Amino acid sequence: MTREALIKTIQQKGSFLCVGLDTDIEKIPAHFLKHKYPLFEFNKAIIDATKDYCVAYKPNIAFYEAYGSDGWKQLEMTAEYLPDTHFKIADAKRGDIGNTSGRYAKAFFNNMNFDAVTVAPYMGEDSVSPFLEYDNKWVILLALTSNRGSNDFQQMSDGNQKLYERVISTASNWGTPDNLMFVVGATHPENFNSIRALIPDHFLLVPGVGAQGGDLHKVSEFGKNNDIGLLINSTRQIIYASSDTDFAEAAANEAKSLQQQMKKIIAESIA
Amino acid sequence: MTREALIKTIQQKGSFLCVGLDTDIEKIPAHFLKHKYPLFEFNKAIIDATKDYCVAYKPNIAFYEAYGSDGWKQLEMTAEYLPDTHFKIADAKRGDIGNTSGRYAKAFFNNMNFDAVTVAPYMGEDSVSPFLEYDNKWVILLALTSNRGSNDFQQMSDGNQKLYERVISTASNWGTPDNLMFVVGATHPENFNSIRALIPDHFLLVPGVGAQGGDLHKVSEFGKNNDIGLLINSTRQIIYASSDTDFAEAAANEAKSLQQQMKKIIAESIA
Repeated sequence: MTREALIKTIQQKGSFLCVGLDTDIEKIPAHFLKHKYPLFEFNKAIIDATKDYCVAYKPNIAFYEAYGSDGWKQLEMTAEYLPDTHFKIADAKRGDIGNTSGRYAKAFFNNMNFDAVTVAPYMGEDSVSPFLEYDNKWVILLALTSNRGSNDFQQMSDGNQKLYERVISTASNWGTPDNLMFVVGATHPENFNSIRALIPDHFLLVPGVGAQGGDLHKVSEFGKNNDIGLLINSTRQIIYASSDTDFAEAAANEAKSLQQQMKKIIAESIA
Repeated sequence: MTREALIKTIQQKGSFLCVGLDTDIEKIPAHFLKHKYPLFEFNKAIIDATKDYCVAYKPNIAFYEAYGSDGWKQLEMTAEYLPDTHFKIADAKRGDIGNTSGRYAKAFFNNMNFDAVTVAPYMGEDSVSPFLEYDNKWVILLALTSNRGSNDFQQMSDGNQKLYERVISTASNWGTPDNLMFVVGATHPENFNSIRALIPDHFLLVPGVGAQGGDLHKVSEFGKNNDIGLLINSTRQIIYASSDTDFAEAAANEAKSLQQQMKKIIAESIA
């Protein structure tokens, strides 16, 4: 999906919501366990219920790998089911030396037709660039993550810049706002201003709203740009809104509630 | 595998060689393509040919993921075939928020019985600690990698320490020499002295000897400790020593040649 198409979708749907598909066999309603492919069947129901309210989906690959080749197959089935009207993110946090990163790019871009892959920056440019070689595909590079451990190394300073700022300023030369986004956790609203000073035009993927404590309105106020420029992810609040047979309806309601708040934010931004 | 068992194996076999299984369908001898599971069949032949000369195997997961659920199945078959006499490393470079890293740990430790997983440090302690909760399983944390991009962020300094040194000194409090190793590339022999000052006892996994230009003798001279404390990886030099029907014999010869150099290094160290 191109940047223009993503921006247009956000405006048309009044939403910059990304639904995380961290599908956990211990948390999905019990009746799915009789299916041969329970992770996929659950995802299918969640996608059907939420697609009108979100613009992106983000399966976290760990939840599929935990079930081996069978889990991987259900990831492939999910990727195939994801509608092309939506921005499809493989939350994989991969990164390896050049020829090896190229293999990961093949897995997610060629084989499963994801639009974007999350990538870890630690190994530097040649670990990221193989993902940037695909037309209309995106790298979403970890910058400032939402977890407690983000303080261990990401906040290290060289006197001028913190590591996450250096990742942003350095990597913004590797790609463009048309093929590169950054992960900035919703748990750091105080950092969005300085990040926007470095990259006014790039999209940010923002996890951590909801269960992790981040606030949609604060993130939007400090993080948005002229195109909105945000994809805000919510996972547990939506997909596990109910563990009963009404899970899909409950998920739809949660997604709709976030979408309606986002619609206002978009309207106020354009006004 | 425990640290004691690994040290004993190294001494008994006169080897600290790890064979990388970055198995590429475009590089393996053509006759494997008629097999249903060509990656696994090739690995099986390589393992049979080299197991007397090495103490560890390290499949890089990207090479299997590139073939989707079918590739993942061949990774599982390979993991099952790897002998328990050898230290089994999943070169996955994973790392995510706590509950998600736990899923990756399950994938590699529970389901496939690897002894160790390579982990990326960028997201900090809670992204690493779920891997450290398993008895007799290991984290091998990226510190100073062998690729060109290792200069982009890993060498950033806060005035006192470079990022890779901070990763080493911080993370050495998360685990112990019994469950934590670090990746230090063979292309940085000048850095081994200062690394050994920080972590005299930990094992180092050293990629980059051979095709990437690293030198076995320099790495051993500067990197070894009283227990040797090194696993030196070689991949392409061994598994692609020949692309013809003599590939297994050629792989054995290359592995044996490295093992014999290592045997001398071990003998000189103990003497």
